[in-house]
Amino acid sequence: MKKRRINPSQRIAVGYAALAVLGALMLILPISHGTSLHIVDAFFTSASALFVTGLSSVSPQTFTPFGYFVIAALIQIGGIGVTFISTSFYLLIGRKISLGDRRMLAEERNSSLPGIVRLFRKVVIFSFSIEAVGALAFSLHLHVQYGYSWLRAFGFGCFHAVSAFNNAGFDIWTNNMESFTHDPFMLLLTALLIILGGIGFVVLVELYEFPRQRQLSLHVRIVLGMTALLLVIGTLLILLFEWNKSMANLSWPYKILNAFFSSTVTRTAGFDSVPISNMQEVTWLIMIFLMFIGAAPGSTGGGIKVTTFFLIIKTTMATIRGRAQIVAGKRQIPWELAQKSMLIAILGITVVLVCTLIDAIVEPSIPIIKIIFEEVSAYGTVGLTTGITGSIDSSMKWVLIFTMYLGRIGIFTFLLSLVQRSQSRVQYVQERILIG
Amino acid sequence: MKKRRINPSQRIAVGYAALAVLGALMLILPISHGTSLHIVDAFFTSASALFVTGLSSVSPQTFTPFGYFVIAALIQIGGIGVTFISTSFYLLIGRKISLGDRRMLAEERNSSLPGIVRLFRKVVIFSFSIEAVGALAFSLHLHVQYGYSWLRAFGFGCFHAVSAFNNAGFDIWTNNMESFTHDPFMLLLTALLIILGGIGFVVLVELYEFPRQRQLSLHVRIVLGMTALLLVIGTLLILLFEWNKSMANLSWPYKILNAFFSSTVTRTAGFDSVPISNMQEVTWLIMIFLMFIGAAPGSTGGGIKVTTFFLIIKTTMATIRGRAQIVAGKRQIPWELAQKSMLIAILGITVVLVCTLIDAIVEPSIPIIKIIFEEVSAYGTVGLTTGITGSIDSSMKWVLIFTMYLGRIGIFTFLLSLVQRSQSRVQYVQERILIG
Ligand SMILES: [K+]
Ligand SMILES: [K+]
Repeated sequence: MKKRRINPSQRIAVGYAALAVLGALMLILPISHGTSLHIVDAFFTSASALFVTGLSSVSPQTFTPFGYFVIAALIQIGGIGVTFISTSFYLLIGRKISLGDRRMLAEERNSSLPGIVRLFRKVVIFSFSIEAVGALAFSLHLHVQYGYSWLRAFGFGCFHAVSAFNNAGFDIWTNNMESFTHDPFMLLLTALLIILGGIGFVVLVELYEFPRQRQLSLHVRIVLGMTALLLVIGTLLILLFEWNKSMANLSWPYKILNAFFSSTVTRTAGFDSVPISNMQEVTWLIMIFLMFIGAAPGSTGGGIKVTTFFLIIKTTMATIRGRAQIVAGKRQIPWELAQKSMLIAILGITVVLVCTLIDAIVEPSIPIIKIIFEEVSAYGTVGLTTGITGSIDSSMKWVLIFTMYLGRIGIFTFLLSLVQRSQSRVQYVQERILIG
Repeated sequence: MKKRRINPSQRIAVGYAALAVLGALMLILPISHGTSLHIVDAFFTSASALFVTGLSSVSPQTFTPFGYFVIAALIQIGGIGVTFISTSFYLLIGRKISLGDRRMLAEERNSSLPGIVRLFRKVVIFSFSIEAVGALAFSLHLHVQYGYSWLRAFGFGCFHAVSAFNNAGFDIWTNNMESFTHDPFMLLLTALLIILGGIGFVVLVELYEFPRQRQLSLHVRIVLGMTALLLVIGTLLILLFEWNKSMANLSWPYKILNAFFSSTVTRTAGFDSVPISNMQEVTWLIMIFLMFIGAAPGSTGGGIKVTTFFLIIKTTMATIRGRAQIVAGKRQIPWELAQKSMLIAILGITVVLVCTLIDAIVEPSIPIIKIIFEEVSAYGTVGLTTGITGSIDSSMKWVLIFTMYLGRIGIFTFLLSLVQRSQSRVQYVQERILIG
């Protein structure tokens, strides 16, 4: 028998699982929590932080400041980790994807190890800089506007900035961000951090260098375009369905502000300024759709990614119009990528459906739409909830932990870690079958 | 400007729409209905019959025997029409797909018009023969077992056989087939007709010729395998979730019988022996999944088709395992087909989501899962319902009519009828983007 080698996918799959266990062990320590903490909730919180999801199965008051430090550390590791891994995957395994990458790689072409170190340093610097600015602004605002003590304002400000930029969406105010419904500063700054975190490292670098380079790669243009488009569509649809419902008691500028915020958090931060449980089922459906699409690749956000969604639309249009090439921004996109994008969507739907089915067995009394919402939220590492997370059975919590794990490392990576890839040497005769 | 030519897709799209209008006009005639009939319900019934869906917005007692004759005629035209069109599409436009086809085409290779006429005659003969046997058996059974007069038994028997073989699922008993919960003969014979209608003409021909030819094409083997697999999975899942729920008062052999029947009707006949409204939401979800997949191509059934689903699974596995060819039954399936299969699934999901959204605007009080069920049922031309069809607003009825239309002519055909296919002469530079 041939000896199996450990491939990068296996390393990621095992590494993330090990980190989640480590985090859970840290949270189980008495120093981390004030009230009692069940083991499944320790795992749930650790997974939810590391996989930057933000679903909470326990009240925010459960954890001590040290506990929150552990959570913030897990979020930071999760956010930087996934940004670094997914970016380096594309940059350093010969899959150069944009002008920006080529520029970044130009200097380190001949040495791959220093290249990785330099990339990692760059990711860390970018993340910490943006978070620091956010943390400072939040701290000042919480101190001045809400009268928090400096220490408390700083603690909350730092945690919230990390939570927002890494699209973690963890709740530290017990009612999430529902106290800030009428606070444009908090909501817009949070939204900005979420969007910056969600467009991805490659895009941030190119934007940063834009004043000098004066050009954007196809990838960056697609990410920016799709992000803007989905934000606007989400805002409009939420306004349409919630104007006289969950947002009935807000004046129209605040309706727009909160609809925009609610649309932003689906990409995939998971804060809420208006309770999701007050919204209509059809709004849940819209959010399920937006959460499933998620953020940009190589970012702290989850979902199948905006570029995947873009490619699915483009492929559909090209096929219907009988075109032999998929064209975007005067560039041709390889069919192999188109095929992978459709596959990612179908795999995602499969995971959500299967997990929903298992949940329905253990929690027969919860309306199925709430279970689907929760599963998509977990798979997209979003963290929005219709309010069931606190009261579900521990078996459903384990299913959600697994869904978050799959959503974060990517179902593709997970499956690649399980199978041995190989080329079959037999060449078969081609035969068509009838389909749809 | 170049003059546009009418392509086959446009002919099908317009032809089906025109037939639906004609059917509606026939049903509006006073001779067709006893009680009053709203115009939207005439269109709904006509579309539901022609597109062999079987959703009813009015009570079965609305129509006179003549009205039922019109409905049966529409079902027959719809069933034979789609079988003929989709089979001839593949056989006569140079896309030979199986051993059976090649045999069938061997004699008419040089003349395409007689070939089409012969194919049409063959489809009609096959359909009528199977329906005749079914009608006879149902008539006898209804007369002997239930004491129907000969005339009534014959009328009901013929209608039911046509309705079953064409996967129409129209209700003539006011409570659908819920009176036959304990009648294995009715349920199993109906299931047999549904399955024969749903595996498709090409498969029927090959099975018919199997004793002589002793071989089955890849297409036929896939259809038979997937149909059996989905029937079994559906039966088991329905048993799992309904054993102590909607089927609690049945003894275990009848639980199995009715679970099998409930599984069969999702492929895509739409009768029910146990009310769908009594079932659990998770069972609805399973049925949504099964209805979406539907029956075999070139059959009277709907959905994205079992072969499409099969190809999606195969493509997924091939991509994950890094294989360059998609292999099934020692044959290679072209990637182009694989791509189309994923596209069909994604287009179907899109149609269902968009229509659900529109429905939710006009019917905000109906639980979203019921709307999704209804839309998938319409798109898959299934006709199962959680019980809302009779009470919905007429605007939702129009949406459902459109969904049935799309489901029957195929979203692909519909889109092809709208766009001008052309090859772009510009060759663009290739550029990769990051996805999922
Ligand atoms: K999140
Ligand atoms: K049907």
